[in-house]
Amino acid sequence: VPAAAPRPLLRIAIPVFEGLTALDAIGPYEVLSRLPGASVTFLAAGGSQPGRAIRTENGMLGIIADAALDALPAPDVIVVPGGFGIRALLEDDVLVGWLRAAHATSRWTTSVCTGSLLLGAAGLLDGIEATTHWLELETLAGFGAVPVSRRVVRVGKLVTAAGVSAGIDMALSLAALIADERTARAITLGIEYDPEPPFEGGSVATASPELVEFVRARRSSLA
Amino acid sequence: VPAAAPRPLLRIAIPVFEGLTALDAIGPYEVLSRLPGASVTFLAAGGSQPGRAIRTENGMLGIIADAALDALPAPDVIVVPGGFGIRALLEDDVLVGWLRAAHATSRWTTSVCTGSLLLGAAGLLDGIEATTHWLELETLAGFGAVPVSRRVVRVGKLVTAAGVSAGIDMALSLAALIADERTARAITLGIEYDPEPPFEGGSVATASPELVEFVRARRSSLA
Repeated sequence: VPAAAPRPLLRIAIPVFEGLTALDAIGPYEVLSRLPGASVTFLAAGGSQPGRAIRTENGMLGIIADAALDALPAPDVIVVPGGFGIRALLEDDVLVGWLRAAHATSRWTTSVCTGSLLLGAAGLLDGIEATTHWLELETLAGFGAVPVSRRVVRVGKLVTAAGVSAGIDMALSLAALIADERTARAITLGIEYDPEPPFEGGSVATASPELVEFVRARRSSLA
Repeated sequence: VPAAAPRPLLRIAIPVFEGLTALDAIGPYEVLSRLPGASVTFLAAGGSQPGRAIRTENGMLGIIADAALDALPAPDVIVVPGGFGIRALLEDDVLVGWLRAAHATSRWTTSVCTGSLLLGAAGLLDGIEATTHWLELETLAGFGAVPVSRRVVRVGKLVTAAGVSAGIDMALSLAALIADERTARAITLGIEYDPEPPFEGGSVATASPELVEFVRARRSSLA
């Protein structure tokens, strides 16, 4: 009797760095880690050390970077989160080089929020539609991308999500593409994702212009 | 000329433990940390050590528990996250004792997902409407609560949220009560919370009975 074929491992890499926005990374992690065979690894980027913690942009949360970038040179799925700290990494040769090489063999290369700026800095978005946090769409254009105000933008194997919370939607749509729709629906129910936002206006299209300016002026504490 | 009054600190305590579900904690953290004067502290529960990491239920993520429970005996806001690990803590005298004492002076005592089981174990939910992950509503009843299938349930200063992702909705409604509606709307836009779930059926009320049974049978990997 032949043994059952081992389930192929789905290797998911999430680089983390000082000044990360936690939900950018944790939203997709919570979804993608539930995929059959998934193995999520948080990688140390930007001078952080494997086995040590990075702190989020407000300093209030420490997340362990478990492995060095070069421990996972060819993941199946790449998720690049954003946060203020990403700005300091857009010319980080080690991280940009890792991303460029990993993208060459990845099945999916994705980002949440300002993580797409790193994809742009790596030259992956030239002339390609992509999105980011609404405050940074112009910055994204500066990297050659065609910025789009949508929650999730997919072009081939490149998938970019809008600000912070959009990574959950992105990951669920990706789950259906990686596995199947039934699995994505099961994860949706498993994390009880039937959102009831207490307030509308979570996007520039639906918020009042006055609120948009209010948040723009206080971006360091609110966005 | 009198100096401006210092902004009062809003002390938010989130106990973390081995076997946590990360999004239960990080959803509310991402919202509440943006409140004026907010200071979020992740506390070491269940034998975890301050300054050391706890691992989530799948082992794939390490989160630093920054302080001991007794370092923050009287927080303004308590957020108890859930996860499989909470089951081992329902008779943990240190954690239950801390929660009971902290609740005596808190402004808000809240939970996400199976975190409400700890509120129940501490005797805070006797005869009170509360919610939890849909798979655990009967367990919650066993602690004397009146289980309710709603996304967020508020009774006085007790606020319980349904499974995993519901903590974001809970925290945004709480943000309006702690600060004001304008602040809550600004955070909503800041984290771009205008969800577009790719699949419906994120609650038992909207999922097919077949999918509910599918997830129930695979709860250890999906819920």
